[in-house]
Amino acid sequence: MIYLDHNATTPVAKEVVEAMRPYWGDVFGNPSSSHPFGRKAREALEEARSQVADLLGCLSREVVFTSGGTESNNTVIKCVAYSLKDKGRHIITTAIEHPAIINPCLFLLSQGYEVTFLRVDSKGHVDPAAVKEAIRPNTILISIMHANNETGTIEPIAEIGAIAREAGILFHTDAAQSAGKIRVRVSELNVDFLSIAGHKMYAPKGIGALFIKDGIKIEPFMHGGGQESGRRAGTENVMLSVALGRACILARDRMASDGERMRELRDRLHGLLASRIPDLVLNGHSKMRLPNTLNVSLPGVDGSALLDAVPGVCASTGAACHDRSVVLSHVLSAMQVPEKIGRSAVRFSIGRSNTEEEIDTAARMIVDAYRRLRS
Amino acid sequence: MIYLDHNATTPVAKEVVEAMRPYWGDVFGNPSSSHPFGRKAREALEEARSQVADLLGCLSREVVFTSGGTESNNTVIKCVAYSLKDKGRHIITTAIEHPAIINPCLFLLSQGYEVTFLRVDSKGHVDPAAVKEAIRPNTILISIMHANNETGTIEPIAEIGAIAREAGILFHTDAAQSAGKIRVRVSELNVDFLSIAGHKMYAPKGIGALFIKDGIKIEPFMHGGGQESGRRAGTENVMLSVALGRACILARDRMASDGERMRELRDRLHGLLASRIPDLVLNGHSKMRLPNTLNVSLPGVDGSALLDAVPGVCASTGAACHDRSVVLSHVLSAMQVPEKIGRSAVRFSIGRSNTEEEIDTAARMIVDAYRRLRS
Repeated sequence: MIYLDHNATTPVAKEVVEAMRPYWGDVFGNPSSSHPFGRKAREALEEARSQVADLLGCLSREVVFTSGGTESNNTVIKCVAYSLKDKGRHIITTAIEHPAIINPCLFLLSQGYEVTFLRVDSKGHVDPAAVKEAIRPNTILISIMHANNETGTIEPIAEIGAIAREAGILFHTDAAQSAGKIRVRVSELNVDFLSIAGHKMYAPKGIGALFIKDGIKIEPFMHGGGQESGRRAGTENVMLSVALGRACILARDRMASDGERMRELRDRLHGLLASRIPDLVLNGHSKMRLPNTLNVSLPGVDGSALLDAVPGVCASTGAACHDRSVVLSHVLSAMQVPEKIGRSAVRFSIGRSNTEEEIDTAARMIVDAYRRLRS
Repeated sequence: MIYLDHNATTPVAKEVVEAMRPYWGDVFGNPSSSHPFGRKAREALEEARSQVADLLGCLSREVVFTSGGTESNNTVIKCVAYSLKDKGRHIITTAIEHPAIINPCLFLLSQGYEVTFLRVDSKGHVDPAAVKEAIRPNTILISIMHANNETGTIEPIAEIGAIAREAGILFHTDAAQSAGKIRVRVSELNVDFLSIAGHKMYAPKGIGALFIKDGIKIEPFMHGGGQESGRRAGTENVMLSVALGRACILARDRMASDGERMRELRDRLHGLLASRIPDLVLNGHSKMRLPNTLNVSLPGVDGSALLDAVPGVCASTGAACHDRSVVLSHVLSAMQVPEKIGRSAVRFSIGRSNTEEEIDTAARMIVDAYRRLRS
């Protein structure tokens, strides 16, 4: 079984498992308790916070732990909306965001807010000029993903961030897919908020973080106890926060070599497929793209049927969170990919453990299945 | 170090750790993926769901996994409020709820909702007649905790549930402290919603569940992907859901023997303290109380100073989530406990691993410290 679906979720790194170990054993205290059990847990949590901050290039106190990317995104979209409702009720985002951005925006629409969903070009790029044009006097938030989960296309976040800053509008990026794969530094990206998700970067599912720039105060999404400096109530998930911290350090240390290796494997897969499938179409940008992501259309076959015909290769037709239930990906659709091409799209996403041999085997199996289906 | 703070958080049971093991290893798929990695994760999640349902006496499909008790409570309070805002904007709760209920209610107050915070008697009991009287034509939700975290007092939930049902009003109970300690069956309690928290019942922090009675549709708290049948977006926390499921089965199997044993140890501690501290005051109900919880005031000493003087015993002066920052517990305050008595309160909460020897040692150390502080 060859796993080429790392954008859906990654395995947990061995180093991360080792880091977690004390927290399912002796170090089980509640970080809010004053006694030594609590103190140890608190120290572990703060160490983990500094590790996340290290990867993102921010202060520890700018990191809030959440239950995952979806919670981080919900927090920004809804809580900025609530907190600034007297200033304005207009939000700018794109048509290619993850459902964890689109659906909170649709919820706000139902609450009387206005949302602009920007188009993208055929490579999946948002035009910074279009962002600038969409700004209104009542715009309170711009939220644009760092890298798209389906195509891997990387957006011009720094440039858009500069526009947002000049206009005095809060700016968020969903970096769930980019963090751990490419350089993600909040100061370079000019962002006020940034979301990450542990399970996309070799930590377990159920943990994420949100960067909130120092000095910004928004209503908490989760109300209750005073945890996370009053920004996120609920007993802290110490074990998985430690896991995320360790995963961030691992990502920092491995990023250059991982990136190079994944790009090689990814391009090898692309080359092998393109050489045998002449009308193969690359979806997304050829260069400004995550090093591990290959989204290709194999015209004439249905992407879902193709994957069914290659049970030894685990990949997906789009985002895992709606997987094969969607007839045509909303991302490819927004890129004006013709329906026939869009329906034949398959996403392969490489991970740390993949080998050249796996890539060669996968390519052979895919090409065989493609030929069977075409004939 | 003697740990008597199990109401703040419990260690993770060995059986629970064993159950989690595959999920930090080979079984790492995204439950939404169609390939075998996804399928295995999905099956594990559904098995865990049925285990939670087993403990609560409900259908599997009535269980939604959350990131913890705080999220479960936020979901009910806020999403019932949003979903039924055209029907009414009045909520009934009590003054002794956990901050994860009180603070979402205060947030709703700021949004134009009305909230009645019911008083309790000197034992911490809510009067069902007072609930009935508080009902207005625009009441949309009643939320009353099953057992109080500080005193252990058990509320007459079944009786209040019958009143709510007769009035056609949705009824929620926060069972974070009772689940796993006493019988918690949704049909006997007459509830429409019920919250549980993993880390109070020997599963890790960062996982919880919410029972939503079949047929009830509310706006999701977390918007995004279609996970949890559209009721809670975000990639499922498979590993910790499995942990919670296993913890529920363990609680079911051990409940009778654990309950008896904890009551013995708890009453032994109470007896030892009362025999040497003649003016010891029990806070909470003497009988209608969680079997593991002992909240006592040692008049003449400050609870916090007492705990500092007994570093070998880990307990707390109130809820861990605000621990020693609160001058007087809002729970004891609502019970009309005089400030002098309230400030001298200490909560001991027994767990599975505690022994008679630990109880005897703890009692001796507490009495010694008490005498030192008094003299």
